[in-house]
Amino acid sequence: MITHFFEDFKTGDAYDFAIPAMSKPEIMAFAAAWDPQPIHVDEEIAEKFQGGIIASGYHTLLVALRPMLATVMAKSANIGGPGMEHIRWLYPVRPGERLQTKVTVANTHASRSKPDRGLVSFDVETVNEAGIKVMTLQFAAMIHRREPAAPA
Amino acid sequence: MITHFFEDFKTGDAYDFAIPAMSKPEIMAFAAAWDPQPIHVDEEIAEKFQGGIIASGYHTLLVALRPMLATVMAKSANIGGPGMEHIRWLYPVRPGERLQTKVTVANTHASRSKPDRGLVSFDVETVNEAGIKVMTLQFAAMIHRREPAAPA
Repeated sequence: MITHFFEDFKTGDAYDFAIPAMSKPEIMAFAAAWDPQPIHVDEEIAEKFQGGIIASGYHTLLVALRPMLATVMAKSANIGGPGMEHIRWLYPVRPGERLQTKVTVANTHASRSKPDRGLVSFDVETVNEAGIKVMTLQFAAMIHRREPAAPA
Repeated sequence: MITHFFEDFKTGDAYDFAIPAMSKPEIMAFAAAWDPQPIHVDEEIAEKFQGGIIASGYHTLLVALRPMLATVMAKSANIGGPGMEHIRWLYPVRPGERLQTKVTVANTHASRSKPDRGLVSFDVETVNEAGIKVMTLQFAAMIHRREPAAPA
C-alpha cells in the first residue's frame, strides 16, 4: 500500500530507528556470503588487525538502513534510487552492539523535466551505544508526486 | 592466507569479474530481507513504475563487489574500509542479467602518520550484457604494508 508521495517529504523531517544487534555468528555468516575478508571471518587476523571480529561495512549499511527501507520507503511511491554519497565507516561495529539510526530529509527537488516526480535526499547517521558515530551517508530517491506539479 | 599488501597495489591495476545473474526469486528474497520496497517485491507496482521487478541497488552492490571482496580483498592485509563514494545506480538490473564488474586501482597513498599502512582507492564499474553501465562507485581500503615505509 503506497501512502507516501513526493509531497509528503519535507526538509528536516526525521526518523529514528533502533537497530537490532548483529551477533558474531550473524556477522561471520553475512561476511562469508558477501564480504569474506579476514577482519570479518578470520578470528586470528581480526584479533591482530582490529582486536576481534568486526562487522562488514556492507552488513552495517544494510542493518542500519533496513528499518527505514522497510517502513517509510516501502510505503513510498519510489521509482528508484539514483545512488548514495559519502558512505563513511567511521568506527568499528562489533558483535552485540545496539546501534541507532537517524534519517533526516536533507532536501527535496521537484523534477524540472517530469512533472510527476521529484527527488528526495536523505542524510543518515548511525551511532553506537556510546553515542559514537559508526556510519554516515546520504542517499536519494526519485518519488512520484500524488498530483502532478502545476506548470511553472 | 594474506598475500597482498599495500605495496602490491599499483595505480592502474585492473580486475575483471563475471557476475552471476540474480534470478527473480533471489532478487525478491534479498529485497524481502533487506530492502522491501515495492519495485523489488511487488510485481504489480514494479510493473507500473519500472516495467517489472528490478534488483535492489544494495543487492546489485553486493553481487557486483563480491568477487573482488572474495578474491583480491580477502587475500589483502586490509585493516578496514573508510568508506565508499559516488555510488550511482545508473540503469535498472533485471532478473537473469549477467553483469560484468571492472575494478581499477585509482590511486595509492602511503599513510603520513602510520608507516605500517597505506590507503588504496578503487574505481568500480559494472555493466550489463548490452554494455550499459548499471552501477559505478569508488571505495577505499586501509592496507598494511609488507615492510614499514622508510622514514622520509
